[in-house]
Amino acid sequence: MQKFFDQELNSLKTQILEMGSAVERAVEFAIRGLIERKGECFNQVHALEEKINKFHCAVDEACLRILARQAPMASDLRVVLAIIKINTDLERMGDQAVNIAHSGKHYISEAPLKPLDDIPKMATEVRTMIRQALDACFPADPVAAKEVVLRDDVVDQFKNKVFHDLVAIIKKNPEVVERALDLILIARNLERLADHATNIAEDAIFIASGEDIRHGGANRSVS
Amino acid sequence: MQKFFDQELNSLKTQILEMGSAVERAVEFAIRGLIERKGECFNQVHALEEKINKFHCAVDEACLRILARQAPMASDLRVVLAIIKINTDLERMGDQAVNIAHSGKHYISEAPLKPLDDIPKMATEVRTMIRQALDACFPADPVAAKEVVLRDDVVDQFKNKVFHDLVAIIKKNPEVVERALDLILIARNLERLADHATNIAEDAIFIASGEDIRHGGANRSVS
Repeated sequence: MQKFFDQELNSLKTQILEMGSAVERAVEFAIRGLIERKGECFNQVHALEEKINKFHCAVDEACLRILARQAPMASDLRVVLAIIKINTDLERMGDQAVNIAHSGKHYISEAPLKPLDDIPKMATEVRTMIRQALDACFPADPVAAKEVVLRDDVVDQFKNKVFHDLVAIIKKNPEVVERALDLILIARNLERLADHATNIAEDAIFIASGEDIRHGGANRSVS
Repeated sequence: MQKFFDQELNSLKTQILEMGSAVERAVEFAIRGLIERKGECFNQVHALEEKINKFHCAVDEACLRILARQAPMASDLRVVLAIIKINTDLERMGDQAVNIAHSGKHYISEAPLKPLDDIPKMATEVRTMIRQALDACFPADPVAAKEVVLRDDVVDQFKNKVFHDLVAIIKKNPEVVERALDLILIARNLERLADHATNIAEDAIFIASGEDIRHGGANRSVS
């Protein structure tokens, strides 16, 4: 019974990590489409989102099956609950990648505004956070996960700078407001992606210790 | 044992509905602060968000305890899993209310742009969705829940109209770009709130039937 359970749980972890890789690639293609002005990259984002959505349903289904048939305890139960949450975050990260592709498609249909230095830098930071958050999950590495949580501030600073610069551009030349708004919304999507990566890192900490560090609190769960 | 479980589950449902009420009030205060230009309303939003965050941790803790100690089956297990997800959505809805308060505080610090007809209308629509989604949960009412899912399109149309109108305002008078951006972001926050309400409605459908209607699919779970 335990062996069968371990197999099911391992298969679940593999699925969530594959889903995570699909999210990483979706974000990568969305940003590449924007920076390299390649519309075909955005099609890849949509294809990956479909894949992510299939994972979303399959992972939830598998978690429900494990809980119903195996009634896992203690640390195994924490892993399953964390996977339910990570699954939700990854699905919404897929949506954010699609939002970037949507704004990006509009943005590249007209002349670029200026060299987009901060957006690719911000995207690199966000992609690192996503990778590190997923790497911190199985086996759970709370030290690495806490680093991800701290990185979130850097992304927020980038977003504020992008907002500030684009507002100045709009004031100087209001005709470009639609394109500037595309970039403002993309910066916002990247910020949301970083928030989701932070959520995943918090789940990794919960897997490791049962410690709930959200909202600055340290609520201990059953162990 | 079953009686004790029923008590725990009922207490969990009560908690999630109280949390939902706190979210509704947070959204109401955020919008009232914006429309009536009353800064003290935004303080209420922050106080409610703290309350929502405490519920967030407490509900997760209670769900974990129920799963660990009672190993619920079939429809009871579906309710617990749905509550885990609704809890996540409600917490993020609290964040969205805070985002509205943040932009609202900035917006009312300067002269208003124009009568904000569409934002309050959009907010009313969103608040109705939140109320109906929560009402559809316990006992689960899939017919009412499906109505919430359909309403999401109305909110998206409002958001597009607000975006379009504000872009025109910026083009005419670029000096107001910051204030216009506040309203654009608030419309975006309202759209996100509607998405979360839709997620809750989908969870209600899942509670009722085990049917997973997300991503247009009809995946059946174990029952």
